[in-house]
Amino acid sequence: MDKIRIGILGYGNLGKGVECAVKQNEDMEVAAIYTRRDPASITPLTEGVKVCHVDELETPQDIDVLILCGGSATDLPEQTPKYAKMYNVIDSFDNHSKIPEHFAAVEAAAKEGGKMAFISFGWDPGLFSLARVIMTAALPKGENYTFWGKGVSQGHSDAIRRIEGVKDARQYTIPVEKALDAVRAGENPELTTREKHTRECFVVAEEGADLDKIKNEIVTMPAYFADYDTTVHFITEEEMKAEHSGLPHGGFVIRAGKTGWEEENNSICEFKLSLDSNPEFTSSVIVAYARAVHRMAAEGQIGCKTIFDVPISYAFPQTAEEMRKHLL
Amino acid sequence: MDKIRIGILGYGNLGKGVECAVKQNEDMEVAAIYTRRDPASITPLTEGVKVCHVDELETPQDIDVLILCGGSATDLPEQTPKYAKMYNVIDSFDNHSKIPEHFAAVEAAAKEGGKMAFISFGWDPGLFSLARVIMTAALPKGENYTFWGKGVSQGHSDAIRRIEGVKDARQYTIPVEKALDAVRAGENPELTTREKHTRECFVVAEEGADLDKIKNEIVTMPAYFADYDTTVHFITEEEMKAEHSGLPHGGFVIRAGKTGWEEENNSICEFKLSLDSNPEFTSSVIVAYARAVHRMAAEGQIGCKTIFDVPISYAFPQTAEEMRKHLL
Repeated sequence: MDKIRIGILGYGNLGKGVECAVKQNEDMEVAAIYTRRDPASITPLTEGVKVCHVDELETPQDIDVLILCGGSATDLPEQTPKYAKMYNVIDSFDNHSKIPEHFAAVEAAAKEGGKMAFISFGWDPGLFSLARVIMTAALPKGENYTFWGKGVSQGHSDAIRRIEGVKDARQYTIPVEKALDAVRAGENPELTTREKHTRECFVVAEEGADLDKIKNEIVTMPAYFADYDTTVHFITEEEMKAEHSGLPHGGFVIRAGKTGWEEENNSICEFKLSLDSNPEFTSSVIVAYARAVHRMAAEGQIGCKTIFDVPISYAFPQTAEEMRKHLL
Repeated sequence: MDKIRIGILGYGNLGKGVECAVKQNEDMEVAAIYTRRDPASITPLTEGVKVCHVDELETPQDIDVLILCGGSATDLPEQTPKYAKMYNVIDSFDNHSKIPEHFAAVEAAAKEGGKMAFISFGWDPGLFSLARVIMTAALPKGENYTFWGKGVSQGHSDAIRRIEGVKDARQYTIPVEKALDAVRAGENPELTTREKHTRECFVVAEEGADLDKIKNEIVTMPAYFADYDTTVHFITEEEMKAEHSGLPHGGFVIRAGKTGWEEENNSICEFKLSLDSNPEFTSSVIVAYARAVHRMAAEGQIGCKTIFDVPISYAFPQTAEEMRKHLL
């Protein structure tokens, strides 16, 4: 059987994660990595895989699915519609408020090119969205709760790094156990921002910096920290490197619903992720659904789809018959 | 908008659960309840709904989807293929080893009749199966674990009731916390039957019965209890009625997977249910997917499908556009 030929656009954390995930899927191979950098500056993990400049995508490449590994702020709004005209594509666009706009642009492009395009795959948006919808479909009467963490927030870490006197920083978002317990108990609490998550910051300060001033600037920072209970720890560069170099993350989607004629019974559904590597797991989800992109395109389907539109059978390597026998 | 007209065949715990779930879905209504009993002996919860003898299904009824609420041992193997020739149907067939056989029979019948048929919906099979497949698709390297409980096992309760001197019994299946913790920690343990679940039994004995003999018969019963750590409590009829009349259940599907080039990182995915009423939740899942049956049939699709084949968008009341905007 011919392997599904995957193109990777962008070789940061996500692109490397895609490369690792493809290695775990026997029916796939990395055909090429595309980059805006000098291709000679990149050494892929996969032996023998070619690294090309992004411009080569302008002439048709021998790939089945192009996985777009750029950022949602500026890369994907431009790249996904552009390449959906020429290739079957999948992205992890995660700017929730701009999804309708992104969908419209990608849908138009994919239809123009006769290609299949999947957007917003990963875990949130992605598996968490799917969990929310399944639980809400089954339990129309109820409340949804999403908690994130414990995990590193890149945006919050960057915000701390911009403070004067800060050399490096890492911020962990941590769900509040008491809130989780109340939700799991079916109490359907109304939770404030402060009651749902705490924020823990590890900061390497420059020599001679005013630590109290840095700490105060962090905990009072609007939008990022002011609405949360925030703790700040000053550590050395060595400690930062030794203990905080990973990108763990995770979270919980919980629906607390009611069943029964008088809504007298609780049904609590919970989907939980605990990830040593956030980008590697995100990539793993994308790669599974790249299989679905390929299969739908092979059937002649075109246009844009999200995780709500794709039967899981398309993303799974086994046949429907095998799945019914072993997994249903 | 016309409501989706639901027929309910069988008015036990599951049929009543369907009736309760339909009440929570504004785009549906119970058209009729069909029973093998004397229809006059049944008083539905829904005001004004008609109760018919099952034989009336032989002449075409004005229903969009017939929900089959019988048992998997003898009812569904006969009923689902039979009615799939005449109606769009959905069942909760849960005899895992016989699913391929059941699928083949229902597929042939639905195609013959030009109808849409869904089989094995509920939570296991059903949502748990879907969780297993999604997690396995995303994490090809890893192990799946399923734990059940805490919840009432009807089969084990019945087995105790057949012992001489037992008037009534209720058996709870309980997952072992230590095993759950090891799985969640990514230790990928190999677990024996005894290490995964314990069994707790509440027994009302007949007056003068030999309690030690009953207890011994329970804990040594092959297949049901001999391989488990089992505790037995003798209680009064009043205690049984007051404290053990519900049908709670639930469980956990956990995939402990690896990501990274050398599989050096853990990704733990967990889907958990905690249900005050097992039959009501099962019914709620079935009713949501009855919407998908209706929509697929309206598109002219025919044949048999399982939860692996159905995009969640078909089971959700909102439009794809609304779902992308609010839930992705």
